[in-house]
Parts: sequence; structure tokens; C-alpha cells
Amino acid sequence: MEALPTWEPVRRPPTHKLVLAQVEEQILAGRLKVGQRLPSERHLVTALGVSRTSVREALRGLEAMGIIEARVGSGPDAGWTVAGRSPEAMGTLLRLHVALAEVSLSDLVEVRVQLERQAAEAAAIRRTDDDLRELRALVEATRDPRISQGEFNELDTEFHVRIAAASGNTLAADLMQALRAAVKGWMISAFDRISDWRAVADRLLAEHEQVVDAIERRDGARAGELVAGHITEFYEGRGRA
Amino acid sequence: MEALPTWEPVRRPPTHKLVLAQVEEQILAGRLKVGQRLPSERHLVTALGVSRTSVREALRGLEAMGIIEARVGSGPDAGWTVAGRSPEAMGTLLRLHVALAEVSLSDLVEVRVQLERQAAEAAAIRRTDDDLRELRALVEATRDPRISQGEFNELDTEFHVRIAAASGNTLAADLMQALRAAVKGWMISAFDRISDWRAVADRLLAEHEQVVDAIERRDGARAGELVAGHITEFYEGRGRA
Repeated sequence: MEALPTWEPVRRPPTHKLVLAQVEEQILAGRLKVGQRLPSERHLVTALGVSRTSVREALRGLEAMGIIEARVGSGPDAGWTVAGRSPEAMGTLLRLHVALAEVSLSDLVEVRVQLERQAAEAAAIRRTDDDLRELRALVEATRDPRISQGEFNELDTEFHVRIAAASGNTLAADLMQALRAAVKGWMISAFDRISDWRAVADRLLAEHEQVVDAIERRDGARAGELVAGHITEFYEGRGRA
Repeated sequence: MEALPTWEPVRRPPTHKLVLAQVEEQILAGRLKVGQRLPSERHLVTALGVSRTSVREALRGLEAMGIIEARVGSGPDAGWTVAGRSPEAMGTLLRLHVALAEVSLSDLVEVRVQLERQAAEAAAIRRTDDDLRELRALVEATRDPRISQGEFNELDTEFHVRIAAASGNTLAADLMQALRAAVKGWMISAFDRISDWRAVADRLLAEHEQVVDAIERRDGARAGELVAGHITEFYEGRGRA
């Protein structure tokens, strides 16, 4: 018996995905750089031979990923530019990813500890005097008894990201900011459960100061250990004073 | 002289961003979970009191981030479901991020080394017999002399991601897959420049085998060191044999 020909429905990727892929390719090839304008929607419609709807949907996708942004005060026709680094978009994505995958807090903390330990070690080696001044200024700002829990959280985040920046690795700094954004909700509710949050804040602050001291005397191993202990203890103690 | 009132144009976030934010909130609050259907576009239009265009643009944004997906074989009205983990979307985002931020290869390698060292250490402690069998099978598959450069790259990626999976940390495994996607283009062109790529592949393969040996005898420190050296040497030598 001869085999009959079999037919399968053709799977065609949706047009807007093909448009999105073309923009991505231009970026990856270095032909579209940060700050550059994208051609107008009208131009893309003609150049790519697709509908205006497909173009617009693709652009919204890139916007949601923080890759392009609409120029302020302009309608959709006035143009899009390629955005800079997108730690915020990466933060959103990581946060949703963590929520959907039900990534455990301990997995997240483990990754944070790895990145932060390495960042502190490298910061102790590569830090400039400016880095040191800014880290000290952040510690001082956190000491102000008038700041709110929310402000404390912002300053605390900034301190950790600043260490990563002092390590000279921008990817590590952006990932840290993204991971921090992913645990923000947890951090805030942990603080809400503490009766005397300022006492906890003061302890964390004293630990920050020790970390800066180690970075100042270029003791990378100690800086790494201190920051790893600082994070692990907070999560294990669920923020208890 | 009295101060005159000053007026500033009201900055109103675009409607589709507000729609997107509402979907994100539902996910973060755990009210929308993986595999669940989103309400129809029509329903969202009514419930949120916005235009169909805004709803559709918001959904495209979420789709681009890999957060929702259109159900196969269905038109846009037939529905969206919440997608599972999105290492691919994270990979795309990281890759674009790296291209736009001009993150140096050395920064990227530094982050990879940190995550992979930790993953190998943890894998040596937590690995099951299944993990071990699968790692060995990947090594064997890579040994086949008939595989192409592209196939080698896939198997190599799978090997590294499998170690992270054996460490039990899903976030680390997904990040590793994303970082690996970000360097894929570089890896492929590095291999293209090698006259005898198979010789390099064989050396990398022998190193993989040593890593598995260390994981088998639960020697975490050694597994971590080996994997860190394996990666660093490849990049420093630009893949030279």
C-alpha cells in the first residue's frame, strides 16, 4: 500500500512578531543604537510591506520591554527612539517571572547573595574615592531618623546597587537592581510586620557601615563575607530585630 | 511682587500602559496564574473602560515579554493564557540590553562565572542520580563526531543549564539560560574563527567530563573551580585550541 501524502496546517508566525524580530536584528547588529530615532510608523509600513496595526503592535512590544520609548509630548506618529539600558524593564520581567514561576524567596536570595558577594569583593579592589564618598553619603542619609520605611527601602536599594556600580560591572549592577525590584514587595511587607522597624533599620545601617569600612581598606574577602551575612540574616530572620 | 501661578502640562501615562499595569498587578497578587485564561479583549474593554486598541497594545506588550501567549490556532479574540516561566523572553531582553548598553564581554563573563561556580557547588551537594545520568548523557551526545557546530553549541548550553537545574535553583537556571542566549552570537562567531573547531570541542568536552566527575563525588569546591576555569579560559583564549 502506497503512503498517502499528509498535510499539516502551515504555522505562520504572526506578522507583528516578524516586525519585532527585524528591529531586534538591527539592534543586535549595532545598526540601531541608543538615542537613535526609529523610522516613522508610516515608513516601516512601506519598507516592511505590512499593516500599520502589525507595526504598532510590534512597537508596543518593544516599548513594554523598555527597548524603545515614545518621545515625550509627541503622538504615536512623532516617533520612537531607542532607549538606553533597561534595568526597570528587566526588573518588571524578573518580578513577573518570579511571581509566575513561584520562584522561592530562598532561590532568589541565593542568587542575590552570589552576585552581591562578588560585587563587594570587586568593589573593594576597583573602588574610587568618589565611590567611597557616595557610599558614605548613602549611609548618612539612611541614619536620618525622620525618613519613612519607604524611603529607607529606597536608600537601602541604592546602597546595594552603588556597591555593584563600584565593582565596575554594569551588567551586575543592573541585574542587582532588577533582583531588588523583584523582592521589593516582600521587603515592604517584612518591614510592615516589624513592631520597631527603626531598630532593625539601625542594625542594617551599622552593617552597611562595616561593609563600607572593608571596601575602604580594600579588604575584598571581608567585604564579601559581610554583605553575604547581612543579606542572609535579614531573610532568615524575616527582618526581626 | 506676588508670584504668578505657574502651569505645567499634565503628564498622563498612555492608556495601554495603565492596562498593562493592571494585568501585572493581578499576576503579582497571585490572582492570575500560569495556564489561566485572560478575559476576552471585549470583556477587558468594558471592565477597564478603555479602547480596544489600548487593550490590544497592552496585550502585545505582555506577549513580547513572554508573560502571556495567544492560544495556538486561534484569532486574537479566541483568547490569551498566562504563559509559564519565560527564560526565552528574559534571554531576548538580556541580549538586547547587552547590545544597547554595550556591556563588555568581560562583564558578562564575570557574571556567568559567578553564577556557574555557585551552581556547580550546589549541584555537587543536591544532585540526584537522575541529574548525574542526564549530565553524562549530554557529555556522550557531545562526543558524537557527526554533530555540527550549531548542535555542539546547543548541547554545550544544555549542559551548563542542566548543572544549574541540578543545583535546585530555578531562578539561577533561567538566568543562566538567558545569559547564555545573550552570548550565543559571540560563541558562534568565535567557533567560526577556529580552524579546527572539533579539537576545541573535544577539549571542552573533556573539561565537562571532569566537572561531572567532581559533581558525582560531591566535591563542590572542585566542581566550582573547574567550571569557573572552563569558562574563563575559553573566553580569554577566544576559543583557541
